[in-house]
Amino acid sequence: MVNINKMHWSAAHWAEEIERRLSETDRQAPIVNTDSQDTRDFDAIFIGGGAAGRFGAAYLRAMGGRPLIIDQWPFLGGSCPHHACVPHHVFSDVAAQLLLERTFSGKLWFQDMNNKTISILEIIEMFRRGRTGPHAFMNYQSKEQLDLEFVLGCPATIVDAHTVTVDDRIYHANNIVLATGSRPKKSTVSNGNLKGVYDHVTLVDHLDYEPGSTAVVIGSGKTAIEYACFFNATGRRTIIVSRNPPLANIPDGDTRLYLMTRMMEQGMEFLEASELLAIDGDPEDRVKSVRILTPSGEISIATDFVFTALGQRPNSELAAHALGVKVDAKGFVEIDSRMHTSIPHVYAVGDVVGRPMEMFKARKGGMYAARNIMGEEAHYHIGDYPDFMHTHYEVCWLGLGEEEARKHYHNVVVLKLPPDNPDGENVALPAGDRMMLYAMMKPKLSGFQKLVIDGSSRRIIGAFHVGSGAKDGFQYLAPMVRRGLTVDELGEMDELFLNPSYFIQLCRLRAGSKNLRGM
Amino acid sequence: MVNINKMHWSAAHWAEEIERRLSETDRQAPIVNTDSQDTRDFDAIFIGGGAAGRFGAAYLRAMGGRPLIIDQWPFLGGSCPHHACVPHHVFSDVAAQLLLERTFSGKLWFQDMNNKTISILEIIEMFRRGRTGPHAFMNYQSKEQLDLEFVLGCPATIVDAHTVTVDDRIYHANNIVLATGSRPKKSTVSNGNLKGVYDHVTLVDHLDYEPGSTAVVIGSGKTAIEYACFFNATGRRTIIVSRNPPLANIPDGDTRLYLMTRMMEQGMEFLEASELLAIDGDPEDRVKSVRILTPSGEISIATDFVFTALGQRPNSELAAHALGVKVDAKGFVEIDSRMHTSIPHVYAVGDVVGRPMEMFKARKGGMYAARNIMGEEAHYHIGDYPDFMHTHYEVCWLGLGEEEARKHYHNVVVLKLPPDNPDGENVALPAGDRMMLYAMMKPKLSGFQKLVIDGSSRRIIGAFHVGSGAKDGFQYLAPMVRRGLTVDELGEMDELFLNPSYFIQLCRLRAGSKNLRGM
Repeated sequence: MVNINKMHWSAAHWAEEIERRLSETDRQAPIVNTDSQDTRDFDAIFIGGGAAGRFGAAYLRAMGGRPLIIDQWPFLGGSCPHHACVPHHVFSDVAAQLLLERTFSGKLWFQDMNNKTISILEIIEMFRRGRTGPHAFMNYQSKEQLDLEFVLGCPATIVDAHTVTVDDRIYHANNIVLATGSRPKKSTVSNGNLKGVYDHVTLVDHLDYEPGSTAVVIGSGKTAIEYACFFNATGRRTIIVSRNPPLANIPDGDTRLYLMTRMMEQGMEFLEASELLAIDGDPEDRVKSVRILTPSGEISIATDFVFTALGQRPNSELAAHALGVKVDAKGFVEIDSRMHTSIPHVYAVGDVVGRPMEMFKARKGGMYAARNIMGEEAHYHIGDYPDFMHTHYEVCWLGLGEEEARKHYHNVVVLKLPPDNPDGENVALPAGDRMMLYAMMKPKLSGFQKLVIDGSSRRIIGAFHVGSGAKDGFQYLAPMVRRGLTVDELGEMDELFLNPSYFIQLCRLRAGSKNLRGM
Repeated sequence: MVNINKMHWSAAHWAEEIERRLSETDRQAPIVNTDSQDTRDFDAIFIGGGAAGRFGAAYLRAMGGRPLIIDQWPFLGGSCPHHACVPHHVFSDVAAQLLLERTFSGKLWFQDMNNKTISILEIIEMFRRGRTGPHAFMNYQSKEQLDLEFVLGCPATIVDAHTVTVDDRIYHANNIVLATGSRPKKSTVSNGNLKGVYDHVTLVDHLDYEPGSTAVVIGSGKTAIEYACFFNATGRRTIIVSRNPPLANIPDGDTRLYLMTRMMEQGMEFLEASELLAIDGDPEDRVKSVRILTPSGEISIATDFVFTALGQRPNSELAAHALGVKVDAKGFVEIDSRMHTSIPHVYAVGDVVGRPMEMFKARKGGMYAARNIMGEEAHYHIGDYPDFMHTHYEVCWLGLGEEEARKHYHNVVVLKLPPDNPDGENVALPAGDRMMLYAMMKPKLSGFQKLVIDGSSRRIIGAFHVGSGAKDGFQYLAPMVRRGLTVDELGEMDELFLNPSYFIQLCRLRAGSKNLRGM
């Protein structure tokens, strides 16, 4: 067990090391990177080096403290580059690209996509090879640029609130930060373990055959819809089975309708108020069909490929057992606004503390834990946040949808593109980056956007965007909206035309009026 | 000459009307949309209904005034949807799409693009058919939603500062707003009128043959580079001839280097410190070659396709002649900060008043003219603004580049992705929307980003992004940066991961430290 602290591996070297370790099944010695010349106690051991643990450790280090990260994977970054955000985005890029290619199949230079089914396996294998890149970069950045100490490639055993062991090494610290993440909930129906039943983790880790012509997706949340659109874009019949209506997370009716219409045009099938009853297998223990209870009775669908997206469970068991930290009914670790658990010196951050299971919350949780550990009194209140998901499109939103706004404000003004007009969505606006071919040739596909405004205070109270390229902007719009951004202030900003969101210019067209009108 | 004011045409109806008028070469009666029941004088006649005139008129109308727009085209929106922003963005989308298809040619589901040359003519013809969509929408929106009055399809004759005639109609107003735009400068070399020599206007209006295997682009500004990347992406040898270095408009060396490296990898050729000496024609008056003076002597390049992007000239002659408005040495109309010209009651906005020839400046100029006409004292100071252009990538920037920052600040801190590291650009970050396949398979193509920070005040003083999806964000970042946005404030924002720009998380990784360090 060599300490690599004095070695300076490049990202390429890290990639080789990580690939080697991931391909070997035997238990391996941990990768130890600790500074033996630093005689200080660790201020905190972060159990888990994903988004929350790594950012927490980096922040603590920047404050002058001494963190140690322990992770069972041979890389930092956690599930994001391995199973979650990165593959989600790869598959969503593929879906956007294939929507374009299918829409313009045989036109201009586009290849003929009629009846063409794209290999899911090849795309997964491409991702499996490619994910080592972000892994390696995380390790490189963490060690060489962030000066972090870590022990990777072996699970940690928590002894008490100050002591953790890895392999046969013992690490002491003033505090422990639980950043152990979450894992997909498994379906409770029988035969959920048949070959051909996947969630977002097992899909990228274990798929080893080409799925047939029908994909069945169980769930209605972000992950279910994102993966369903990917499967659909590959040319497969895709059926979404859910108890709840899809897109319920998007708080605006027009936006949901635009998205649903586009998904149904692509042939996606939705079985709502329905649930998976059973999965039936063939003699080789492979899925051959699913039985679904729908409002009109039980149906059976022949398929060799089932994807479940039923939410996440916290990885809190070991910490709860070893330390006795209080968890809620679902197992999520309970914390206060300083990220502190029920046990002195034990903090928890990231997915293991519950929703929202978003990157910003994980990373900022880590940051706030670090501040508190280093003696600041720092409270993290999540509050309103901008949100996004992907269908074949990028979808972003913040604040109130029109329906909710009308419940709270008597003078709601809506600016939207396309506006209500006799041609509906068949008008050429909006037209933004990566949507231009649609705008020219198939305008109803070029996106949808909407601002919800309190006409009395002239404040923006909601924003919705379907298309491409608005996500970055929503990050910066959100704090401005929280501070009271008005139509008039937006109308004074400098648009970078053709801006993906037309919010600035839509506001400017109406801002001259004392009595705001919709459009 | 029917007044259509009481008719309510749909966008589809407008499209038919516009297409008919554009396809007929005879002089036609104007499209008159004036409200004969409104007995008020016009507060202003906007000569030109492009970005500046249309937004000015809309703002004036919203303020309760009565504007009239006169435009010789049968549509509102001006050169943007007809010749400029819209086709630029169509071609840039095509370039981005083709870079992806060429990079992954024959891999995954991508078609084989080896030695494949894409038709420029087909893409231009697609745009020519498609541009009627935005035109029609502008007319629909202007009449039905913005309640604007206009006379389209005939040129205006300015009689005096209160009087304009169209055909045989006379219009009076309290003020005139000149919004007559600009046109491309023509090359002064002999034979500049041969068939095969185009600028961004004549290309989309007149191209009627398939360009051969070599494109020669004259110029080094945004338009030259954007079109050159498009021609290159179609599979043609593309040679850029310029006196000045390309990308000089982007004020950061790292960013320029990243872009130049990518363009040269795609085979683009740059002849710097060079100029077009002559264009030689064949017996049918078609371009057959160009002669270029380079630092190492005169060379000749065989080509049937020359694209010039030499800047813009103002359309100010008629107004200068009719009204005597003062113009500068280049013919741009001189205005004060209230958009007022040297002649009482005459305002000017948009390209005709000079640089920057950007959408926000045109539209906001119109808005400020409207305010002043309606009796407000409103001064428009353009100040710092965010900017962008396209190569095969979307490129955005604001503030100071690193080199300039180091001249003005003693403690400049730079955060960038990829950072300086032993593998250079061959690391998997950044990775954002529409860049994921690059990040997985060809990471050096996945983009570049950089924040320039004054380490002492911790303020952001510059931002640069190469990739996709950052343009909207730069619109909102810009006013925050002007107001003093710090690393600490950025680090507290909620990123929508994988955000195209990693500015928030890069700041958070360093923000814990009192003494900011680069990365």
